[in-house]
Amino acid sequence: MMENMKVAVMNGIGQMGYTNRPVPKVEANEVLVKIEYVGICGSDLHYYEFGRIGNYIVEPPFVLGHETGGTVVEVGDNVTHLKVGDKVALEPGKTCGTCEFCRRGEYNLCPDVIFFATPPVDGVFQEYVAHEAALCFKLPENMTTMEGALIEPLAVGFHAANQGDAQIGQSAVILGAGCIGLVTLLALKAKGLSQIYVVDIMDKRLEKALELGAAGVINASKEDVIKKCLEITDGKGFDLAIETAGTEITTQQSVEIVKKGSNIVLVGYTTSGTVNMPISLALDKEVTFKTVFRYRHIYPAAIDAVAAGKIDIKEIVTDIFDFDHIQEAMDKSVKDKANIVKAVIKL
Amino acid sequence: MMENMKVAVMNGIGQMGYTNRPVPKVEANEVLVKIEYVGICGSDLHYYEFGRIGNYIVEPPFVLGHETGGTVVEVGDNVTHLKVGDKVALEPGKTCGTCEFCRRGEYNLCPDVIFFATPPVDGVFQEYVAHEAALCFKLPENMTTMEGALIEPLAVGFHAANQGDAQIGQSAVILGAGCIGLVTLLALKAKGLSQIYVVDIMDKRLEKALELGAAGVINASKEDVIKKCLEITDGKGFDLAIETAGTEITTQQSVEIVKKGSNIVLVGYTTSGTVNMPISLALDKEVTFKTVFRYRHIYPAAIDAVAAGKIDIKEIVTDIFDFDHIQEAMDKSVKDKANIVKAVIKL
Amino acid sequence: MMENMKVAVMNGIGQMGYTNRPVPKVEANEVLVKIEYVGICGSDLHYYEFGRIGNYIVEPPFVLGHETGGTVVEVGDNVTHLKVGDKVALEPGKTCGTCEFCRRGEYNLCPDVIFFATPPVDGVFQEYVAHEAALCFKLPENMTTMEGALIEPLAVGFHAANQGDAQIGQSAVILGAGCIGLVTLLALKAKGLSQIYVVDIMDKRLEKALELGAAGVINASKEDVIKKCLEITDGKGFDLAIETAGTEITTQQSVEIVKKGSNIVLVGYTTSGTVNMPISLALDKEVTFKTVFRYRHIYPAAIDAVAAGKIDIKEIVTDIFDFDHIQEAMDKSVKDKANIVKAVIKL
Amino acid sequence: MMENMKVAVMNGIGQMGYTNRPVPKVEANEVLVKIEYVGICGSDLHYYEFGRIGNYIVEPPFVLGHETGGTVVEVGDNVTHLKVGDKVALEPGKTCGTCEFCRRGEYNLCPDVIFFATPPVDGVFQEYVAHEAALCFKLPENMTTMEGALIEPLAVGFHAANQGDAQIGQSAVILGAGCIGLVTLLALKAKGLSQIYVVDIMDKRLEKALELGAAGVINASKEDVIKKCLEITDGKGFDLAIETAGTEITTQQSVEIVKKGSNIVLVGYTTSGTVNMPISLALDKEVTFKTVFRYRHIYPAAIDAVAAGKIDIKEIVTDIFDFDHIQEAMDKSVKDKANIVKAVIKL
Repeated sequence: MMENMKVAVMNGIGQMGYTNRPVPKVEANEVLVKIEYVGICGSDLHYYEFGRIGNYIVEPPFVLGHETGGTVVEVGDNVTHLKVGDKVALEPGKTCGTCEFCRRGEYNLCPDVIFFATPPVDGVFQEYVAHEAALCFKLPENMTTMEGALIEPLAVGFHAANQGDAQIGQSAVILGAGCIGLVTLLALKAKGLSQIYVVDIMDKRLEKALELGAAGVINASKEDVIKKCLEITDGKGFDLAIETAGTEITTQQSVEIVKKGSNIVLVGYTTSGTVNMPISLALDKEVTFKTVFRYRHIYPAAIDAVAAGKIDIKEIVTDIFDFDHIQEAMDKSVKDKANIVKAVIKL
Repeated sequence: MMENMKVAVMNGIGQMGYTNRPVPKVEANEVLVKIEYVGICGSDLHYYEFGRIGNYIVEPPFVLGHETGGTVVEVGDNVTHLKVGDKVALEPGKTCGTCEFCRRGEYNLCPDVIFFATPPVDGVFQEYVAHEAALCFKLPENMTTMEGALIEPLAVGFHAANQGDAQIGQSAVILGAGCIGLVTLLALKAKGLSQIYVVDIMDKRLEKALELGAAGVINASKEDVIKKCLEITDGKGFDLAIETAGTEITTQQSVEIVKKGSNIVLVGYTTSGTVNMPISLALDKEVTFKTVFRYRHIYPAAIDAVAAGKIDIKEIVTDIFDFDHIQEAMDKSVKDKANIVKAVIKL
Repeated sequence: MMENMKVAVMNGIGQMGYTNRPVPKVEANEVLVKIEYVGICGSDLHYYEFGRIGNYIVEPPFVLGHETGGTVVEVGDNVTHLKVGDKVALEPGKTCGTCEFCRRGEYNLCPDVIFFATPPVDGVFQEYVAHEAALCFKLPENMTTMEGALIEPLAVGFHAANQGDAQIGQSAVILGAGCIGLVTLLALKAKGLSQIYVVDIMDKRLEKALELGAAGVINASKEDVIKKCLEITDGKGFDLAIETAGTEITTQQSVEIVKKGSNIVLVGYTTSGTVNMPISLALDKEVTFKTVFRYRHIYPAAIDAVAAGKIDIKEIVTDIFDFDHIQEAMDKSVKDKANIVKAVIKL
Repeated sequence: MMENMKVAVMNGIGQMGYTNRPVPKVEANEVLVKIEYVGICGSDLHYYEFGRIGNYIVEPPFVLGHETGGTVVEVGDNVTHLKVGDKVALEPGKTCGTCEFCRRGEYNLCPDVIFFATPPVDGVFQEYVAHEAALCFKLPENMTTMEGALIEPLAVGFHAANQGDAQIGQSAVILGAGCIGLVTLLALKAKGLSQIYVVDIMDKRLEKALELGAAGVINASKEDVIKKCLEITDGKGFDLAIETAGTEITTQQSVEIVKKGSNIVLVGYTTSGTVNMPISLALDKEVTFKTVFRYRHIYPAAIDAVAAGKIDIKEIVTDIFDFDHIQEAMDKSVKDKANIVKAVIKL
């Protein structure tokens, strides 16, 4: 085992660089993973552009990246379910296991979570990581570690689908066709829904949605979203709406375009943090608003869905960059949001 | 049986009067009920003051009143579960039984509902009503028909508690101590919750909340609601919040004062119909917003809770008016909202 | 419109015949359907062989058949969602809409249901039927009326999957690969499950299960079912078991082969009506037993799943008989249960 | 702090004795509790009489006892929510926090649980115990440590009520009026149910059930249980049945005496481990069987219910023995099951 590894660090806003750090030692319940792919997430880009998200503030040098797949190269003494050579997808949040949220199974709400690339916790734009073995999910033969890295965003899509209690036979509308909107589309399809419509303002993204199996798309810059949605559903509204665009208008529209008694899942954060909501209409329709914070209990199901061919997750990747070109990867991703749905770094 | 009956009608905004109408004939699946008590609801007062609620517009003469208890005086041919002399509480909404909402048990969302005192359907400020027997719930010996009339607002409280999935052992906060806030308190208590706090700006109402069993109260005009709620809950927030005040500030506060992963139930309508909601905070906490439109499947449980002594529903009544003084009843109720929690008309 | 129609009647045990009856008149809320396909169900065969199921006793002449698809030829005055020429699948049970089960959405438990081919209610081995329009579900262009007829058994499979709360990512085992076992397999697959194993004692049926997408099969006459199931699941047991064989041994096995905390869905009726159950083991594992009685709220979702290509329901049909050969159809179906998974009558 | 403590040990079947052991040291996440009361559970008695329960075999000397309340006398370095002098109830099972059951909140199914008085893990018939602080629940001022000890059996009653999804307004029947039957009655009452009937064959126990608030009782040795239950429920059956007697006949009866679509909760273990179940009837009624293995997430709610006066848990205690008379306590409890509902040891 080499003693040092290459680590990509954010040295300041818009500035990537490299450094060497010791390869981590594995604890008894950990495995050492040679990282092969890391996806670039919207949050990585936000830290890179603005140096912070809310109260999470980057102190350079900081390591970004939390969507990871790789190969096990060393196994801690107490680990039994993994062996050297296993391909794995890494769930990035280590939780305490004892707080009330962990104990009742809502571990994504653990206040003491240690989550890759959430300041001050470093991420994984680096060659190796020692990670809790229970959070490293073995990939079957027919999956690549790039697909493994993409399980992380896909997990958000599945959690949105679960929060909305999506059921086969329902009609659904997804507001926003960015990466999260598209993985939500994939998750809904895998759960058996077929009447899934996607709303966005960029044709390129809507084309991608159609490629990935949307029943139809609506370009909100050209069509009246509410009118169109009511037309599609014979005036009844959709059984389920999932808001991933993070804008006030789409959040408001979600209430207009669902059926009485339905679920609306809010995933996207708006810039201001607030939305002027049509609450009276929501009451008249007795809708439920569910929200999404990361995900829980999703990795095995998401891996199974990809392995079984129900989801072709690699289709969301639009760009692959070499680890040596990480500055370029970050810069292009920031500048060309319309075209880059998902960029991944190959190590 | 007398052939005509006295009916109180709203002849215009702020104008009550009386008329005579034929006593209704009962259909095979109906019973004729001699009405003994009718509660005055906030919606009755709103129609009385403003002539409309949203798109529901009063065309005088119009009969208000939908919170009713009385005694069966005639039984339709197909009715088997009721007999002459039975005291009953009347669920006021007749639904179609065949639409998708009815068929899946969410009959409160039936688009074809015929609901007392919702224009153009007349209410029951009158001596008799013929009503679907399945919507007339027999009261046990130890309940009065005034208690029967109060089952209707209590049903809203129970539905709010159910929508919030209130569970014994949880802490809860109710925003607003008007009639609906107080019946929600009673419903939560009946379901076994003990840590129930109530927020309002009127001391008189908060005293009533304490009398009815609140663990504590907060006067929002004197105390910092958010700070106080976090103090009470050791910084964690409440397990459940139920918003009945229908103001923007209380709706916003509900998100601040609940625990991560909790339910917020929205019951109150704001004047503007909209609320500027702290959605990012809601996402960070992964809260769920449930809403309440009337109620469903509640009458038997609510009657049982009153009959079993778990709820002393008559305690919410602050004023009883004779049928002959209905103008006074309406006027006083409009003018003295601080003191009149619930007025009932005695026939 | 012709005035009379041909009706196939069961004249006694093992005796089919034909008669003429008037074509039914449509009520305002009904449509008249020209029947094109009727599936033969296990219950039809049981009545045919034994003259009764439990307390339901055939009084000849009796009309069997309740799995039906056809084309609308006349529309009642109040019907708006269907028109002449529409292809439809018929849900066979008319329910009261007012009992407590109907009101809370569990209409399959309505005590006053009128269900095709359940004595004394005649079924639909006949040319026309007038049926409540709300129970006639329009088929999309790309579906045939034979597929429409098969929605009925498929609905049982979906209800079993729903009762078991089947979720994508779970492993499942189906005990019994008869018609109901196979439609359950199709429903689970449509809901996104991929690790579905099927147990039976006939290779022919197990081959069909593999064709329809089972991940693996176990022939219980050749292999140790419990041992094999634990091997497949690394000793943990399946996340879900669905018992469709209706034998004591498979029902007992279901408890052995599931994971702690899992659901077991019981669908099959045993001959004796009872099963000696390993209840202590069930308690140790804290399993839940759900049961299935017909289905509710399934037709639209099942039609959507077939129309969207998620389920190729016609693959379960092994034999198609002409209406003129109904005696042969019944006799062959009784004698050759190993080979005839599903026979349909073509009118 | 004294260095040694007195420990009561089971030296063989029917043989209790005492020994001295060092007072345990507290780990950083533990507290040292001076034990004040320990309840005697049916499982303690079973080990005492027979030396084993299933595969759990006592190797003497063995310490029984797992229902415990006491006072904190020392606090580990990392413990923040408890201090010396706090009265606490001890949840007896330490779980791993990382297995799939723990992670999804079903920690009662953790295969690596360390549970007091389950061989080979010693119990707490002793003066002190060091226990994970997260499993020590602080009692409010108005509760005694004897009540704290009784939270353990009460937790089983609450878990049974939760598994059955007991709701206010429902009618319920409890089969068996032993300790678990009675705590289930208390839990159901606390959750707001009032129509709770109890079945047993011993009048003494049924009188206790009436004292504790049963709406009625049935002595199965004198009355026809099924007939009586149908009479009480107007032929419909109960909304919920909870079987705590652990006999074949009561388990079978549970299916007969519930309403269609209802839940049956199985809590009692039969001697043979199996029950010949009327599965066809269960299918016709589409009942659900839930089972109970210990409990999860109950202590805070159960403590709250006792503290708030909704449950008078000390009423189930029929006998209090001194720690010095533990042999007598065990012997009497074994011999006089009809009269001793719950015995506790006072240290």
